[in-house]
Amino acid sequence: MAKITLDEIRQLLRVVPDFPTKGIQFCDIFPLFQRPDVIEAIIDRLVDHVRTQVKTPVDVVVGLDARGFLFGPMLAIRLGAAFAPVRKQGKLPGQTTQARYSKEYGEDVFEMQSDAVQPGQCVVIIDDLIATGGSAKAAEDLVKQQGGIVATYLFLIELPELGGSKVLNSPVFSLLEF
Amino acid sequence: MAKITLDEIRQLLRVVPDFPTKGIQFCDIFPLFQRPDVIEAIIDRLVDHVRTQVKTPVDVVVGLDARGFLFGPMLAIRLGAAFAPVRKQGKLPGQTTQARYSKEYGEDVFEMQSDAVQPGQCVVIIDDLIATGGSAKAAEDLVKQQGGIVATYLFLIELPELGGSKVLNSPVFSLLEF
Repeated sequence: MAKITLDEIRQLLRVVPDFPTKGIQFCDIFPLFQRPDVIEAIIDRLVDHVRTQVKTPVDVVVGLDARGFLFGPMLAIRLGAAFAPVRKQGKLPGQTTQARYSKEYGEDVFEMQSDAVQPGQCVVIIDDLIATGGSAKAAEDLVKQQGGIVATYLFLIELPELGGSKVLNSPVFSLLEF
Repeated sequence: MAKITLDEIRQLLRVVPDFPTKGIQFCDIFPLFQRPDVIEAIIDRLVDHVRTQVKTPVDVVVGLDARGFLFGPMLAIRLGAAFAPVRKQGKLPGQTTQARYSKEYGEDVFEMQSDAVQPGQCVVIIDDLIATGGSAKAAEDLVKQQGGIVATYLFLIELPELGGSKVLNSPVFSLLEF
């Protein structure tokens, strides 16, 4: 079977104007999910990147609620790693670690379960898209609070005009720029 | 490798008292995700069920936000099917179909993208847990509004005391009762 190219993946993305608010061009990834072969090709590329670029075995894949959940567990299984979620405050049971993240208006608090990452563990953070990088930065803060080491960030899509990867302190790999 | 038993899976679940509110015993599935072999065993069992019990090829796996997203895309790839999300109102871009669902206090509206399911398609709905069945019922309503046929519901955990499977009009398969 011929390998699915990045251009083929890009052409399946759907731009929805004025969503969620006027003036925003929203990049909808769900058309990709109509094609299981495309999702598998995306995971293959992310796994290849980690295997070639991360020198120590990955212990934990951290995925951001909600679209990071679509890719994180699959990636974790392929890497033989655990999967741990980052969610907004109040969603995760048990003892949690918190990180604040500033948004255009006000701030949000993100949480991770306190036993999700152990000191010294090698962590990969995944989300569907990086825009300003605020939520990804909060995820990194959570991993570091728990003593983990962020080996790399993985994103399906980067919006380079918003400069999100510049606010992060670990290497960033984005499959596509948009 | 020895097959992971249902009892082993059950023993990894963590009960958190008084979450999210006093008097609720919350069943935390995230300890399962510390073990990629366990997640793979869960997906294997769900795939086996579908392959033996659903007589037509599955076209779409529908997963509920957010914990249904953890299992849905993996299941879809294994079944060679599309994956489509159901989310609360306002989260999905583009044209959507809506279904209301009554909760203890007030109601919620769920949405699915209008092109996610085509008339006559065979659909499997997945979520982590069935309690009263309200959100699963809303997902079924959305699939039916778009002309799809729900072949089966899949849940990791069922709380049988809450009678959720009785409000649903399609077969229910739950890996564990709790």
